[in-house]
Amino acid sequence: MERASAQSRPAARTPRAARPQPASAAVPSDRVRLRRRRERGSHDRAVIDAILDEALIAHIGFVDGDGQPFVIPTLHARCGDQLYVHGSAAGRTLAVLSDERPICLTVSLIDGLVLARSAMHHSAQYRSVLLLGKARSVDARAEKLAAFEALVEHVVPGRWPDVRPPSDSELRATSVAALSIEEASAKLRTGPPVDDEEDYALGTWAGVIPLALRAGAPEPDPRLRAGIEPPQYARAYARPRSAGEAQS
Amino acid sequence: MERASAQSRPAARTPRAARPQPASAAVPSDRVRLRRRRERGSHDRAVIDAILDEALIAHIGFVDGDGQPFVIPTLHARCGDQLYVHGSAAGRTLAVLSDERPICLTVSLIDGLVLARSAMHHSAQYRSVLLLGKARSVDARAEKLAAFEALVEHVVPGRWPDVRPPSDSELRATSVAALSIEEASAKLRTGPPVDDEEDYALGTWAGVIPLALRAGAPEPDPRLRAGIEPPQYARAYARPRSAGEAQS
Repeated sequence: MERASAQSRPAARTPRAARPQPASAAVPSDRVRLRRRRERGSHDRAVIDAILDEALIAHIGFVDGDGQPFVIPTLHARCGDQLYVHGSAAGRTLAVLSDERPICLTVSLIDGLVLARSAMHHSAQYRSVLLLGKARSVDARAEKLAAFEALVEHVVPGRWPDVRPPSDSELRATSVAALSIEEASAKLRTGPPVDDEEDYALGTWAGVIPLALRAGAPEPDPRLRAGIEPPQYARAYARPRSAGEAQS
Repeated sequence: MERASAQSRPAARTPRAARPQPASAAVPSDRVRLRRRRERGSHDRAVIDAILDEALIAHIGFVDGDGQPFVIPTLHARCGDQLYVHGSAAGRTLAVLSDERPICLTVSLIDGLVLARSAMHHSAQYRSVLLLGKARSVDARAEKLAAFEALVEHVVPGRWPDVRPPSDSELRATSVAALSIEEASAKLRTGPPVDDEEDYALGTWAGVIPLALRAGAPEPDPRLRAGIEPPQYARAYARPRSAGEAQS
């Protein structure tokens, strides 16, 4: 997300200072090197993985034969260094993803709105990851099944043991693509608004409106058999899961 | 968002049936024509506009000189048929957006998780818009200023009258691009899970976990002058705004 001003200064604090420094990813390629506002960027795999794991959806960018880019929202799941997406074998997105075309996968989380005293210093608290690479089609049955388990568990941790697993015909009807997490960078903004020094004297309220994705009470399927109660993972759903534990 | 199965049937209901049918956009181009699962798509401008207006962020896709797509999260705002985005005049994204390159702008809202009895029928409640076109650089002072007002009001309705407006140098330091809402389509999913008929007998809980972006109590800037209370638009923040009115 761009901030409203090119004159912005570093955020007052970043999570880096508060976290142990994990092993970094390989030396970043020039394409994902953080060019501007470097104080907000990270190539740490622990930071990147936490954002990928918390985000429910990803936006995949690819280019068609005419040079037109498309950006498609999709569910995703990470297994170690592999990022999986899936889609109908009959659809156009997955066909494109499995032919070695360069793609970009971006996930974004919004944590709050930053209300500054001046219009141009308004901003958002966010965490995002940008991932570049070429997708690989996942065809081996075992890896494909593991990808579906990861996708279901990504969306609702704890769900997989309760559901009917995919049949062979379901597996054939659905394509899975994998992207290696090699060229990746994270960007984030935290902290209070940063105004021009003379604006701090203004009588305008300034601060942050925190935002979070919250789950409501589970709504049973009208065709649910009588006497089946919603499981704990549905009643106390939260992202990340630790947020739900903190609430309860 | 793709569902887990190509065998999915239409969702039980769609918002189309419940809404008056507004004037449709022009005949959809082949590039945004809804190819699959047409029952979930819409070219109605009222549907498209409501999704664009509720979403806080957009993901912009563009292609660099080497054919590599990039997907960048950014704030956006709609004014009638124009969709505005902004960024530093020194950054690479806006430079690309103002040179008539084809772009794709996608917004996605996630409204819930659909827990089916079988793994492959898991899905998400979502609303998304995909917009294709070529960006135009906004250089006239009056339109640029109007775009910034729209961007601030998009994020926090009611905020603009309270803030210091942009100075001339701030306006110069920030680029604005506009995209006409011409080639656009919306996709959405609502309703309960749709399982294979024989799976309805299973003892697995099925239903929807509703999700919504919720605001917490405003956090004042540590440098806020004493005695300034948070305004109503920060204390009762909700997207869409009507959600906040319903709560209070």
